[in-house]
Amino acid sequence: MDIYNIEAAEILANEAQLLPIGEAAPIYEKLLATFPTAAKYWKQYVEAYMAAKDDEATKQIFSRCLLSCLQINLWRCYINFIRRVNDKRGSEGLEETKKAFDFMLNYVGNDVASGPVWMDYIAFLKSMPVVTPQEESHRMTTVRKVYQKAILVPTNHVEQLWKDYENFENSVSRTLAKGLLSEYQPKFNSAKAVYRERKKYIDDIDWNMLAVPPTGSYKEEQQCMAWKRLLAFEKGNPQRIDATTANRRVTFTYEQCLMYLYHHPDIWYVYGMWHAKNGSMDSAIKIFQRAVKALPDSEVLKYAFAELEESRGAIQPAKTIYESLIAENASMTSLAHIQFIRFLRRTEGIEAARKYFLDARKLPSCTYHVYVAYATMAFCLDKDAKVAQSVFEAGLKRFMHEPGYILEYADFLCRLNDDRNVRALFERALSLLPPEESIEVWKRFAQFEQTYGDLSSMLKVEQRRKEALSRTSEDALSALENTLYDVVSRYSYMDLWPCSTKELDYLSRHEWLAKNMANKGDKSIVLTSATLATVGVGSNTKLLPQSAKVVRPEISRMVIYDPRQMKGPDFSTTSSGYTKEVEEILKMFSPQMTSFITNLPAIEGMTRT
Amino acid sequence: MDIYNIEAAEILANEAQLLPIGEAAPIYEKLLATFPTAAKYWKQYVEAYMAAKDDEATKQIFSRCLLSCLQINLWRCYINFIRRVNDKRGSEGLEETKKAFDFMLNYVGNDVASGPVWMDYIAFLKSMPVVTPQEESHRMTTVRKVYQKAILVPTNHVEQLWKDYENFENSVSRTLAKGLLSEYQPKFNSAKAVYRERKKYIDDIDWNMLAVPPTGSYKEEQQCMAWKRLLAFEKGNPQRIDATTANRRVTFTYEQCLMYLYHHPDIWYVYGMWHAKNGSMDSAIKIFQRAVKALPDSEVLKYAFAELEESRGAIQPAKTIYESLIAENASMTSLAHIQFIRFLRRTEGIEAARKYFLDARKLPSCTYHVYVAYATMAFCLDKDAKVAQSVFEAGLKRFMHEPGYILEYADFLCRLNDDRNVRALFERALSLLPPEESIEVWKRFAQFEQTYGDLSSMLKVEQRRKEALSRTSEDALSALENTLYDVVSRYSYMDLWPCSTKELDYLSRHEWLAKNMANKGDKSIVLTSATLATVGVGSNTKLLPQSAKVVRPEISRMVIYDPRQMKGPDFSTTSSGYTKEVEEILKMFSPQMTSFITNLPAIEGMTRT
Repeated sequence: MDIYNIEAAEILANEAQLLPIGEAAPIYEKLLATFPTAAKYWKQYVEAYMAAKDDEATKQIFSRCLLSCLQINLWRCYINFIRRVNDKRGSEGLEETKKAFDFMLNYVGNDVASGPVWMDYIAFLKSMPVVTPQEESHRMTTVRKVYQKAILVPTNHVEQLWKDYENFENSVSRTLAKGLLSEYQPKFNSAKAVYRERKKYIDDIDWNMLAVPPTGSYKEEQQCMAWKRLLAFEKGNPQRIDATTANRRVTFTYEQCLMYLYHHPDIWYVYGMWHAKNGSMDSAIKIFQRAVKALPDSEVLKYAFAELEESRGAIQPAKTIYESLIAENASMTSLAHIQFIRFLRRTEGIEAARKYFLDARKLPSCTYHVYVAYATMAFCLDKDAKVAQSVFEAGLKRFMHEPGYILEYADFLCRLNDDRNVRALFERALSLLPPEESIEVWKRFAQFEQTYGDLSSMLKVEQRRKEALSRTSEDALSALENTLYDVVSRYSYMDLWPCSTKELDYLSRHEWLAKNMANKGDKSIVLTSATLATVGVGSNTKLLPQSAKVVRPEISRMVIYDPRQMKGPDFSTTSSGYTKEVEEILKMFSPQMTSFITNLPAIEGMTRT
Repeated sequence: MDIYNIEAAEILANEAQLLPIGEAAPIYEKLLATFPTAAKYWKQYVEAYMAAKDDEATKQIFSRCLLSCLQINLWRCYINFIRRVNDKRGSEGLEETKKAFDFMLNYVGNDVASGPVWMDYIAFLKSMPVVTPQEESHRMTTVRKVYQKAILVPTNHVEQLWKDYENFENSVSRTLAKGLLSEYQPKFNSAKAVYRERKKYIDDIDWNMLAVPPTGSYKEEQQCMAWKRLLAFEKGNPQRIDATTANRRVTFTYEQCLMYLYHHPDIWYVYGMWHAKNGSMDSAIKIFQRAVKALPDSEVLKYAFAELEESRGAIQPAKTIYESLIAENASMTSLAHIQFIRFLRRTEGIEAARKYFLDARKLPSCTYHVYVAYATMAFCLDKDAKVAQSVFEAGLKRFMHEPGYILEYADFLCRLNDDRNVRALFERALSLLPPEESIEVWKRFAQFEQTYGDLSSMLKVEQRRKEALSRTSEDALSALENTLYDVVSRYSYMDLWPCSTKELDYLSRHEWLAKNMANKGDKSIVLTSATLATVGVGSNTKLLPQSAKVVRPEISRMVIYDPRQMKGPDFSTTSSGYTKEVEEILKMFSPQMTSFITNLPAIEGMTRT
């Protein structure tokens, strides 16, 4: 059901080509509804009507595609059509054709492949019949102007056009020619040099690509990058031409780019912002209007659009966009509510924001985020801790079961330095939350006690956490054991760790291994001698897949500052640790063997039987 | 210079074996200084003295190694030595030998390989000469007791021992035998079943391994896990024997484990904590004393030790450990200062903590963490915002150049909701910090404005950030461009994103690609036509290696909640976006072609020339 299936589209287009236009037309319409910027299909479509000599239909098609498909081949079709229909219309027809050439070159005259069109136009102008010397002079002036424009465009034909222009000026007046040619020579040179450079960027682009929503494919990324390089190149105005012409080229390149990357929101965005930066705010707004029409599902484009409107002071249009964001995403409006409340507060004041919040919170789609955001605004912007706290309390009635909300409320109470209520909140939440949803709350409770508690409250919470979480996790009993890794987390502070990088690597790795071994370990603990033989416990430790619910060592935090790493190990004391006891043994050794045997100190916990 | 080179050690040990003991002794000493728990080297060493009939030296060696090497082969050497030296000493010698057997079995009688020793002991007892019936009766009682102990130990010889015991009882008294054997039968059965299970764990262990500091190798991890599984098995008391015997086995297993994992701090820790949990606090303390001697570089073991002392109320010993932590790590004392200040506050009160802080902050090794920690204590525990702020201000004089300190101070001021001073702090810091060190500060400044600022202050800070950071980063000019990805970060809230997962993936990927493309893009921007031809710009986009200093999209935060993902795309409006304009064109189309040409609306920014 992927309507953007490129192979299917190509097959369809090939089929259409074999059918009479009456049957092919609905196929083309279907194709072009999906690929409105596919110049090649438009061309095929319009050529079918042209072959059928249906001028009215041809015009209709051209009117629908030309401005959205700035592609030379399509436009050459158009000019051929215009020339044909005006062929028999005498001077009026010639005038129409001339206007069509002007129109065409205005839109695609900067294309790297526009050289032949410029040449055709000049040939057409030269072929226009003249009667009076005034007419001839006028034609000459027109031809000169077109040459002078043509040789500024970096195309493959710029050298040929320059030669033609030299001949033209020399044929008009040898004396005038010298001045004019020496004036235009550097401009031509510049265009020629820029063409060589431009061609490299152009060659990277696949001009046959169909516009589909981003797939993330390598080819697509290469194309995006190729377009961005070309755009950067054009924006840099390498030819150092006047700003207007340079900007027209950038606009032309963006429009061409959107034929291929029509579904890429970032292109629309940078295009719009480029206009805004260049001071053409109206153009920017129009681009954004096209963008949100082209990609109606892209929320972020709407936020970008609203932001642009707001930042140019167009509050009402911005508000309209926010309202559409809220209306269109019934299932996911919390973020839109939050951003709209912020917007209202900025543009209409506290009261408007408050009213909106009071309504929005009643909606079933309103999540706890809206309460958090509103309370934060009350606290940070209005400095009203009382309102903030009452919003949090009101939310608690509804979101007691949301660990995320508990954590936000706890953070807020910590900001107020109200540790009594933080503890009460944690206890209240943990008495209600099922263990599998309380992992993060326990973690924060333990962190909280590390800051606000003493040693015993810290250890107590950690022990309670282990007990609570072991009930659901696979690692049951062994999870209850206090590990050295727990000590590391208790005695770390900010980016300071009570161990070396190596030790931390080792401990976290083994914490993880032990968690994954636990299953097996537990079983053996509850084994009785009767069932022992039936349990397969071997060396093939099965590593369980990582589960999101299980507390893991936080590898992400494990960057350590440890200046001691450069220090070599100190081996002077790496003896067995028995030294003192052994000295005592030796004292008692002679003369009797008995004393050696009976007076050896017991290893801790190993009392004689 | 790795003294824990295992191959070198093996070569050395083999060489020593070929040398006379006088020359070999220093080699053994060197080896055993590095590997004090290597039973195999001790055995080789002591055997060399035994071969040389140097009883005094033999005794010395045994006294140094037996208790730290609970290995059957080494102890069998010992018992053979004892038997030999007591061979000619008559009844006194026999008594000595008997005591040595008791001593040995007390230490290693629970070993899985202790079966033959039990059998030897029984044979020895049986061979003891008796004269009187009382003596014979006494011997019989002794033999019975040993049998009854031996058949409780899960060894390979437990079945043989059971058969021997049956014969023994039957030979003593058929009538008594029945009762005794039926009492011991289930105990023997249990030992037999547990042996089968125990053997599986034992077989996973490499009994030849030398104890080296953790290397992280796969084999080492397998061994650690094998030991931990064996320990968990023993702790589970699968044989359901009395607690004392079960605990002796666990102690024995830990001691054996430490012969091989001597340098693994977590083993020492769980061993000590196991004692503490079992109520033998004195044993726990002794284990920790051995541990910090064995691994003097392990800070975390010292924290664990101090924690144990503190939590049992032994404040003075805990303080001594903290003081040693501070004294021993001259280059890395900040964390120790912080933990000691916390400890003092808990145990001696605010004034003691304050005094210590005032001294510690004067030390050159004191980093900003100590200020942050002390200020946080003042704020969170003493609720004294004034002291906290003055500590932060005092620290600022010294740590103005530390981005980490700036961020902590800014966090603190945010807790106070003092946005005026937060802004002042950011501005002050950013005017001093070089751009390459201000990345995080800029990021937080931008986040701060998202909460405390309005749209224009938000955009202004982001623009300033881009300008400041572009000066040093490779991506210069293009980094200045506002991207859609920036919009995403501005309009996100908590875990809500203004776009779908797919869109976010796309945008972050392209943000990254663009950053890496920038180098090339920039160059073309400053190109003049003269230099154009010389710059190689092709399709081989070189991806720069990721630099830690460059701001990257935060992939880690990119988990998105998006209920809309299930919704199919809406294609109803995916047309070209020109619809309205084209409708106007069509209205003007007939009857004159001219109107079609001249009244076509210009594409934004493309004015006619």
